[in-house]
Amino acid sequence: MSPKITTELLKQLRQVMKSPKYVQEPVQAYIVPSGDAHQSEYIAPCDCRRAFISGFDGSAGTAIVTEQHAAMWTDGRYFLQAAHQMDNNWTLMKMGLKDTPTQEDWLVSILPEGSKVGVDPFIIPADQWKRMSKALRSAGHDLVPVKENLIDTIWTDCPQRPCKPLITLDLSYTGLSWRDKIVALRSKMAERRVLWFVVTALDEVAWLFNLRGSDVEYNPVFFAYAVIGMNTIRLFIDGDRMMDPAVREHLQLDSTLEPEFKIQVMPYGSILSELQAVGAGLSPKEKVWLSDKASYALTEAIPKAYRYLTPYTPICIAKAVKNASETEGMRRAHIKDAVALCELFNWLEKEVVPKGTVTEIIAADKAEEFRSQQKDFVELSFATISSTGPNGAIIHYKPVPETNRTLSVNEIYLLDSGAQYKDGTTDVTRTVHFGTPSAYEKECFTYVLKGHIAVSAAIFPNGTKGHLLDSFARSALWDCGLDYLHGTGHGVGSFLNVHEGPCGISYKTFADEPLEAGMIVSDEPGYYEDGSFGIRIENVVLVIPAETKYNFKNRGSLTFEPLTLVPIQTKMIDVNLLTQKECNWVNDYHQKCREVIGAELERQGRHEALQWLIRETEPLIRVQ
Amino acid sequence: MSPKITTELLKQLRQVMKSPKYVQEPVQAYIVPSGDAHQSEYIAPCDCRRAFISGFDGSAGTAIVTEQHAAMWTDGRYFLQAAHQMDNNWTLMKMGLKDTPTQEDWLVSILPEGSKVGVDPFIIPADQWKRMSKALRSAGHDLVPVKENLIDTIWTDCPQRPCKPLITLDLSYTGLSWRDKIVALRSKMAERRVLWFVVTALDEVAWLFNLRGSDVEYNPVFFAYAVIGMNTIRLFIDGDRMMDPAVREHLQLDSTLEPEFKIQVMPYGSILSELQAVGAGLSPKEKVWLSDKASYALTEAIPKAYRYLTPYTPICIAKAVKNASETEGMRRAHIKDAVALCELFNWLEKEVVPKGTVTEIIAADKAEEFRSQQKDFVELSFATISSTGPNGAIIHYKPVPETNRTLSVNEIYLLDSGAQYKDGTTDVTRTVHFGTPSAYEKECFTYVLKGHIAVSAAIFPNGTKGHLLDSFARSALWDCGLDYLHGTGHGVGSFLNVHEGPCGISYKTFADEPLEAGMIVSDEPGYYEDGSFGIRIENVVLVIPAETKYNFKNRGSLTFEPLTLVPIQTKMIDVNLLTQKECNWVNDYHQKCREVIGAELERQGRHEALQWLIRETEPLIRVQ
Repeated sequence: MSPKITTELLKQLRQVMKSPKYVQEPVQAYIVPSGDAHQSEYIAPCDCRRAFISGFDGSAGTAIVTEQHAAMWTDGRYFLQAAHQMDNNWTLMKMGLKDTPTQEDWLVSILPEGSKVGVDPFIIPADQWKRMSKALRSAGHDLVPVKENLIDTIWTDCPQRPCKPLITLDLSYTGLSWRDKIVALRSKMAERRVLWFVVTALDEVAWLFNLRGSDVEYNPVFFAYAVIGMNTIRLFIDGDRMMDPAVREHLQLDSTLEPEFKIQVMPYGSILSELQAVGAGLSPKEKVWLSDKASYALTEAIPKAYRYLTPYTPICIAKAVKNASETEGMRRAHIKDAVALCELFNWLEKEVVPKGTVTEIIAADKAEEFRSQQKDFVELSFATISSTGPNGAIIHYKPVPETNRTLSVNEIYLLDSGAQYKDGTTDVTRTVHFGTPSAYEKECFTYVLKGHIAVSAAIFPNGTKGHLLDSFARSALWDCGLDYLHGTGHGVGSFLNVHEGPCGISYKTFADEPLEAGMIVSDEPGYYEDGSFGIRIENVVLVIPAETKYNFKNRGSLTFEPLTLVPIQTKMIDVNLLTQKECNWVNDYHQKCREVIGAELERQGRHEALQWLIRETEPLIRVQ
Repeated sequence: MSPKITTELLKQLRQVMKSPKYVQEPVQAYIVPSGDAHQSEYIAPCDCRRAFISGFDGSAGTAIVTEQHAAMWTDGRYFLQAAHQMDNNWTLMKMGLKDTPTQEDWLVSILPEGSKVGVDPFIIPADQWKRMSKALRSAGHDLVPVKENLIDTIWTDCPQRPCKPLITLDLSYTGLSWRDKIVALRSKMAERRVLWFVVTALDEVAWLFNLRGSDVEYNPVFFAYAVIGMNTIRLFIDGDRMMDPAVREHLQLDSTLEPEFKIQVMPYGSILSELQAVGAGLSPKEKVWLSDKASYALTEAIPKAYRYLTPYTPICIAKAVKNASETEGMRRAHIKDAVALCELFNWLEKEVVPKGTVTEIIAADKAEEFRSQQKDFVELSFATISSTGPNGAIIHYKPVPETNRTLSVNEIYLLDSGAQYKDGTTDVTRTVHFGTPSAYEKECFTYVLKGHIAVSAAIFPNGTKGHLLDSFARSALWDCGLDYLHGTGHGVGSFLNVHEGPCGISYKTFADEPLEAGMIVSDEPGYYEDGSFGIRIENVVLVIPAETKYNFKNRGSLTFEPLTLVPIQTKMIDVNLLTQKECNWVNDYHQKCREVIGAELERQGRHEALQWLIRETEPLIRVQ
């Protein structure tokens, strides 16, 4: 990996930072955050502005360029990668280390008095703007919105914003028509006494209208905004995709409809002016509901007194609770996904053990190949983490030719992968050994398994937040002085983003919404031995009502049902470290894999994989 | 209980709300919060202004009086009590219920346009002022500070502010001289680049100067403030207690000292003007450190740009980590406390079973009597919760003649009590049955015990916050559909407040500081069956380093050591519900009680209680 040479680019950026063509007054610093105008986790190539200006293309990082300096803030996952990808023009700011200044403190320490700091108001979320602006103002500087993105002005070969065809989803997938979703949304709006709701997150627009796209890799979303009034629906979207008869039919664009369900289609770029018009027309006590993570530009379009900001929108919360059709779709998707993985592991066993020619990349490709054979496969849901030996200890690893390792009978292999099917999204991690694992590897694996089971089998009262379950996943590891430095689970969309709010299982969050029946999260504890191996066991699980002896005085209770049904390698388990209850959990789980996935393998005529499944789901026997 | 008649008082209050003698402009509403100028949990009689004006004397509640209305906000613990204690002039606002308006919303809904809402700026914490003021301003009203407390102007027989003699603590108790504490504090101040630190919490003043008082019941504190500069120490305190030669000697008031350790003693009431003088003399970049819970009055004395506010002060954090002398003191205090409780339970067994004449109040008094026989006993650390049968299900119960129940062989008895000794503070709950508990009572008790053990025996990496351990205490209860609606533990002071920050074990908090070796918390899960019984098992536990097989890659780990050494009634345990590990924990714990408390009972010649202890600590045997 050689660094990107950025001398010329920085020179050009510094010129436009002073050019009256782009800025009213020269800015002494310009901030280039990660992210797009929708605060997406995964972004399109045209939005990779920070990578363009610096060369550093990790998923998290903020660049700040001043007349004299160029600095990049990123976290521990990316210290090495950023150092390799950036040239000497850049200073790496290692977040989380004690001596690293915050962006605000650094700016204050180097800026001349009374400076202006520019940022694209569409890219910076309102809450970040507020914090940064306050810090700068108290030091005598100003944070100013620069309407035209200055990176775009110098990015001559910037890729076009994607504008791919849409997929319409009928009731059998969504369980609820977009009209019914609008009705439910308006009732939430009425409850909070707001007149308008602005949909800014891409997955929220997609969910609301029962549409999917492919503008962003791995996330079946499309670039659009929506503004929902009590009697109006405005969809801001570009391209000729609204000419597609299937889409027009789906959205009933050409039908005679009650006016409150008539969708006005408007250009993507007109959102700001339309919102400003909404803002200008408000009477006292009329409120507009926005996510507090919406961009500064859109938030500012509504005068402060009229804003109603919440961390989670009503769409985010409704989307998280899957209805019967969505749950059934997720079940189907996970059955297909398990078939593909049974095929893969059966194939790997035959290839790795005698031949030793399978690399991490080949294995990842093969996994994709098996998945793509399944009905309604659309694409992967994230970049496959296919990692063997020491690579497994790199939590966000993705094999590239430089790091690509060959699977062998001597190393642990960790595969974290998933797919988008038209009926659901999957995300599963299995950790296997093709030879004989050491006693230590088995010990660590078994603690991770105990943590996985502790969460999966946990019973908890209604109203419990996911972060309260995080320690259950760690207890067995903690007892022996082991831990893992990531959360235990995240929300999973239904043919949507593989990471979604507002629920999760992590010690890091506190503002998560309580778990509810119908929510879907991952359960993925792990253990990582640097330079040696990585272990993670991940199922996607559905929150379901639990039956308990005393039922919490009718408060009711919840537990999890695994949707993922892929064998957990028993060879890696030290059965003597399991309690009888844990042992039964594994056996019951494997019995279910055998029944459900076995039947599907049979139906698809995949007999070899079926034999593999039967072998891998032999019951554990615990010696008392 | 008959309600307090408040018609005349409210009339008087409404008069002074308009009187130019007390308010610059009439106020249309006046807020009477709980609490004193130090945001204490326990308050002196002269600070019980909300109880005076309304009759409601629960520990939490806020009164608001307007021209037409008088309303009281309190939480679920006090709905019944408040309804009984207040007359028809008052509207009860039941916090936590969906339809109950917030104070702000209620004010906005009833106030005439452009109203002024008054409050004593010394009583309201700055963060609450901010929230209330913002809400009122956005509705066109104003929150205004009323310098003279309006309740005090009509409270003709208001008790005097207590001003009791001080106790000096020497190094054998504190382990650190007040000079060394000042040095450590100044080094924290230098780290954060602040020039002044304002000590507003009473326990922080007491801890800093190694002094104790008795101005507030149960809390060995005294009314005082302190302002610490890099070269000055100002102590704001009233009365002739500074004339006490022991105190003068302790504080070296009459010695020739380096100027930076010279304590300037000033009148308690001069804190505001002195702080305003400090505020007026600051140069840019000079900061003053305050708790963000300090009163609005003191916070406002420092111009905004010069304030440095944190949720936990450096004293709060230093105080929480007990040094070797404090830990040894706490150990001694807990041994004495256990002796008293062994005596009590031995006495109860002999009285309750054959005679049936012991009431909750008699039992509480007897507990105090036995405690007072121990060396260095000062007072109780909180009002004893002595409760039998259904009274046990009232979590904050305190027996009064109207509710006083007789202990019997048919009901569970719950005793939550503690004391202040010169060497330490105790807080212990035991739940016992003097007859034969039902299978259901034993089942519930055993789940609570499993939760208690799960926390007490938990091993967790350095840096873990207490709230992450809360679910461990609930897991066994949850599995059967049971739960308890309070946190699992609180910090405990060393001959100081029985409740102290910044650590604890509760699902409710998130801003707690990580647990550290030397911190002391309670471990007190429970189960409450309304109208029937209450169960709680509480030990005070010390955070200590743990030894683990793999030691978290040298990150190190922690666990708890019980300081409380009082037998847990084995009669209440269903041994078959315990794992072998849990059974061993109980047996090891009882073995330690026998050894440590047995030796002390022997030493004190308390032979009957010793026999009781030996009987009560017989090992459990678990049938496989």
